[in-house]
Amino acid sequence: MELFNYFRSSASYRVRIALALKGLDYVYRPVHLVRNEQQAEPYATASISRLVPLLKDGESYVGQSLAIIEYLDETHPEPPLLPADALGRARVRALAQDIACEIHPLNNLRVLRYLTRELAVDEEAKNRWYRHWVEEGLAVFERRLADGQAGQFCHGDQPGLADCVLVPQIFNARRFDCKLDHVPRLMQVFERCMQHEAFAKTQPSACPDAE
Amino acid sequence: MELFNYFRSSASYRVRIALALKGLDYVYRPVHLVRNEQQAEPYATASISRLVPLLKDGESYVGQSLAIIEYLDETHPEPPLLPADALGRARVRALAQDIACEIHPLNNLRVLRYLTRELAVDEEAKNRWYRHWVEEGLAVFERRLADGQAGQFCHGDQPGLADCVLVPQIFNARRFDCKLDHVPRLMQVFERCMQHEAFAKTQPSACPDAE
Repeated sequence: MELFNYFRSSASYRVRIALALKGLDYVYRPVHLVRNEQQAEPYATASISRLVPLLKDGESYVGQSLAIIEYLDETHPEPPLLPADALGRARVRALAQDIACEIHPLNNLRVLRYLTRELAVDEEAKNRWYRHWVEEGLAVFERRLADGQAGQFCHGDQPGLADCVLVPQIFNARRFDCKLDHVPRLMQVFERCMQHEAFAKTQPSACPDAE
Repeated sequence: MELFNYFRSSASYRVRIALALKGLDYVYRPVHLVRNEQQAEPYATASISRLVPLLKDGESYVGQSLAIIEYLDETHPEPPLLPADALGRARVRALAQDIACEIHPLNNLRVLRYLTRELAVDEEAKNRWYRHWVEEGLAVFERRLADGQAGQFCHGDQPGLADCVLVPQIFNARRFDCKLDHVPRLMQVFERCMQHEAFAKTQPSACPDAE
């Protein structure tokens, strides 16, 4: 397999964690977003969305980080990244989507660029925007974790899809100095994850394209 | 089952379509977003995220529209809303996420409110923002549909998850006068969907709380 990704892209980091949890080898293909390499051929056509990450498995391409992780879980079931019961699976997917559909889309590079270039938003207001969605969104995640089903990780005592999505979001939150003292359960899970090799060895600073 | 939702919420409409495709009965529970009913108790606590939609099944609650639809597909497998093969499932999920993670999060009510109230963005610039993400995001969806796997619907000839997400987004696009002539394949699927009872009878104007 090949993973087209960028060291600082949190959606890319989600997939790197999943691949590591599954113990799967892959070729790391860097795509430099700040230099707009995602818009250049042949990547632009292969990726369809011109976003990262993109997984190449044989001759097939799979895009969208959550779809890639579910694909990996279906094609390489061990260890599972989703629980076996439908309600548990729904809970884990909702946690992942609390970040992937509510926080991250508002704060990725192309959105921040639009704020600055098209709406002439200044640096301080841009950072307030960023922190607003992170801090409010993580409060939702924290409340969901308080339902008694979290263990050492977001769902029980094994890392899974929700952890793959949580950890990269915390890296982003720290880069932008977001408040995190209102989400103690979530930070406890984060710290536990970072003691796990699959999360530590795939972190942005450990990537081949890290700057 | 009970569905807490709002007639104009496109994430709610996704779930209404899925329930109709499955032929499942439910109690329609309106939550008026413009009047901020999602912030009032008892909904605020039950929903965790204070967003719609929210499904109540027995004593359990399931949030996040895509998680709800996958939950319904797992608990009521017929007719399936996802293909049987892993690559097909990944394709359909990626299509759904092209909208649910790339377009809709930028254009929902709380984000538009932030633009207006916190960033003092005027009406015209707000509408440009809205259209930008819709038009660019739907172009991605259109390119993904061009891979030869679409049929009468987004994936083959049966409606599924991707159609549940596409149709409500087109309703939003039309409300905001977005350009749609660059996405002919997608519009063909949309028209086909609207001939299907499950999509037509659950549309915003047909809801009990429609204004």
